[in-house]
Amino acid sequence: MSKNYQYSGISSRMKASKIRELMKYASMPDIISMAGGNPDPVNFPFDDVKEIINKWDKTKSSIAMQYGPTPGYPPLLELLKHRMIKNRKIDMKGQSLFITTGGQQAIFLTAKIFIDESDIIIVEEPSFIGAMAAFLSNGAKLAGVRLEDDGMDLAKLEDVLKKLSGEGKNPKFLYTIPNFQNPAGVTMSQNKRKKLYDISLKYQLVILEDDPYCDLYFTGSPDKYLPIKSLGNDAPIIYLNSFSKIMCPGFRLGWAVADEEVIDKAVLAKQSLDACSSSFGQVIAYDYLKNGFIDNYLEKMRKVYKGKKNLMKQKIKEYIPDSVKSTDPEGGFFIYLYLPDGLSAEKIFKKAIEDKVAVVTGDPFHTDPNIGDKHIRLSYSNSTDEQICKGIEVIGNAIKSFI
Amino acid sequence: MSKNYQYSGISSRMKASKIRELMKYASMPDIISMAGGNPDPVNFPFDDVKEIINKWDKTKSSIAMQYGPTPGYPPLLELLKHRMIKNRKIDMKGQSLFITTGGQQAIFLTAKIFIDESDIIIVEEPSFIGAMAAFLSNGAKLAGVRLEDDGMDLAKLEDVLKKLSGEGKNPKFLYTIPNFQNPAGVTMSQNKRKKLYDISLKYQLVILEDDPYCDLYFTGSPDKYLPIKSLGNDAPIIYLNSFSKIMCPGFRLGWAVADEEVIDKAVLAKQSLDACSSSFGQVIAYDYLKNGFIDNYLEKMRKVYKGKKNLMKQKIKEYIPDSVKSTDPEGGFFIYLYLPDGLSAEKIFKKAIEDKVAVVTGDPFHTDPNIGDKHIRLSYSNSTDEQICKGIEVIGNAIKSFI
Repeated sequence: MSKNYQYSGISSRMKASKIRELMKYASMPDIISMAGGNPDPVNFPFDDVKEIINKWDKTKSSIAMQYGPTPGYPPLLELLKHRMIKNRKIDMKGQSLFITTGGQQAIFLTAKIFIDESDIIIVEEPSFIGAMAAFLSNGAKLAGVRLEDDGMDLAKLEDVLKKLSGEGKNPKFLYTIPNFQNPAGVTMSQNKRKKLYDISLKYQLVILEDDPYCDLYFTGSPDKYLPIKSLGNDAPIIYLNSFSKIMCPGFRLGWAVADEEVIDKAVLAKQSLDACSSSFGQVIAYDYLKNGFIDNYLEKMRKVYKGKKNLMKQKIKEYIPDSVKSTDPEGGFFIYLYLPDGLSAEKIFKKAIEDKVAVVTGDPFHTDPNIGDKHIRLSYSNSTDEQICKGIEVIGNAIKSFI
Repeated sequence: MSKNYQYSGISSRMKASKIRELMKYASMPDIISMAGGNPDPVNFPFDDVKEIINKWDKTKSSIAMQYGPTPGYPPLLELLKHRMIKNRKIDMKGQSLFITTGGQQAIFLTAKIFIDESDIIIVEEPSFIGAMAAFLSNGAKLAGVRLEDDGMDLAKLEDVLKKLSGEGKNPKFLYTIPNFQNPAGVTMSQNKRKKLYDISLKYQLVILEDDPYCDLYFTGSPDKYLPIKSLGNDAPIIYLNSFSKIMCPGFRLGWAVADEEVIDKAVLAKQSLDACSSSFGQVIAYDYLKNGFIDNYLEKMRKVYKGKKNLMKQKIKEYIPDSVKSTDPEGGFFIYLYLPDGLSAEKIFKKAIEDKVAVVTGDPFHTDPNIGDKHIRLSYSNSTDEQICKGIEVIGNAIKSFI
């Protein structure tokens, strides 16, 4: 019996995203999935986690199983602050840090505390689908600015800002993933980071800087990939990171760093979202950082993901026609394919899925889905070497069948 | 340097609740806190959890550490559906169930999918502060209906519904905790459950039925406390429950049962909140239910909480003047004190805190804070027997000092 529920305006407008539909294929048995953004399940640090838990005394286990303070487990907050200073070169003076239920919650909370109906949010074109969904579900309108090989087109960004300003509109914030971007796999140059910092200062444009992949670089040191936030705290920058790629996603833990007043607002909003993030996960995360398990894990995983990326690039060269351009990520999980005119990502998806290989077409990552049909995102993070070889061969054949 | 952040309208209006301020005292060292609503930390089933984790093979640990489907870990969903049918007598036909990040997220999601700015939500007077905060943070206005000894005053409710209807307004839903209510500790009678079900049908009034304490009854069987939802699915009822009181709060796990279309909307909204709830916690919760650990735990905890409640009632009789009325809960965590005219809860709070005993005054639980200053909530769940004796003595002395 239909009951004629009266949903909110936003909820009435919300539709299941196409990527969710596609993901149904990705979880079918025998499918080789390059569609998701999951970390490598073979190498999760489960033995470390088990060792940690088995060493807890009554005091620690009681904290882990109880409600905790909304901003997070205090010893973990302290460790993360030190890590932000040491590894990400962020000046913590006047800044606060709090724990969120995954990086996704930090994105949602930023949307929640800033966005009123019809406010404009600037995103990279293409951008992370989970972030765009959070902005839309808080009533935002999205303005996309094209991503180039070295990050967002900043000349175009200034045009957009001037145009909006002329219309009396000020975007509430700009969302960027500077390192090993999802979905495109590109990295913002140092030069553009400085320019974007200056733009943020000049226009008082809040930057939401999402940096979950920063520790998974393939060459050099983390200093090559320091965040925009490391350039100073004069510009209004909210910095996000996550445990999903440096430990595992299974505890839903992320964190945010920003001016104290912004974090205070976000913590207040978090109270009614879930009261606090998992204490159990936070106490584990504390021990995992404190005992140095994280360093061994990251050293191993940088090699694992680099190996997978190199293999996928080699197979792309072998099986995919030269007219298809692909990015060569310096870290992270993703390679992006740019199809030549005349090819449709959706058609290639449908062809590949017949041979049990799943990818994601570009359209859900774009504010303009027509652009997205020229793109395909491939994830190597979650696949074995064998699956990468087989998968790229199938995708190559699917592409060739349309040329 | 202040940066003149432009927050959303709702975020600008939101203030830290008084209870949060009070809770700062509660976490000071040497304080006996009867202020929080935390479960007993001495008896958490940590040994069960450790045993569960130590038995996991690679497949299970990989699922536990990975992202999971947004609605939840499928085997856990199946177990909970069976539990809802068997223990709560809910007809699952046409109904869906999904996992949330604590019961709090289920409340927030219901608010998110139903509430537009200025929509009216009906709450019990007094009501759970976390729920009221979630409604307000989605733009709602609250209409309180007085709680009697056997549940909400339903004659008054019908008056409110008729009055609103006359003004062309329809409340989006009514929020109730029928069993061992937070904060008042009262239980809705069977008769009122039937009447409220009929009102829901008659007015097509959505009921948000929050039932986190149902397994912690002190006498009889769970059949004494079956939910309104067990009366049928013709009325639009959304049923919520949580692992916080039947296992622990530390994994942030709850669940909701409602018509499929409502759950579909809520799952879609959850995607942008946190993508999924903790897989680690969900796989533990599955084993905890499957292995029957939950039955042993609940059998023990019903006795533990009943003992604490009886001790607190005895000490109230001993130390607190007869002119102060107190509820006698049939389960759950809370006793509510009704002060006689001339006494102020806030003054008693301030006096007791000098002697290092923390309580919560009633005002944050009320839509009208003046009523609340006549009430005090006492929690026995989190205190040792010694703390209960000492705490009630101090509160009794504080009260007497004002008479």
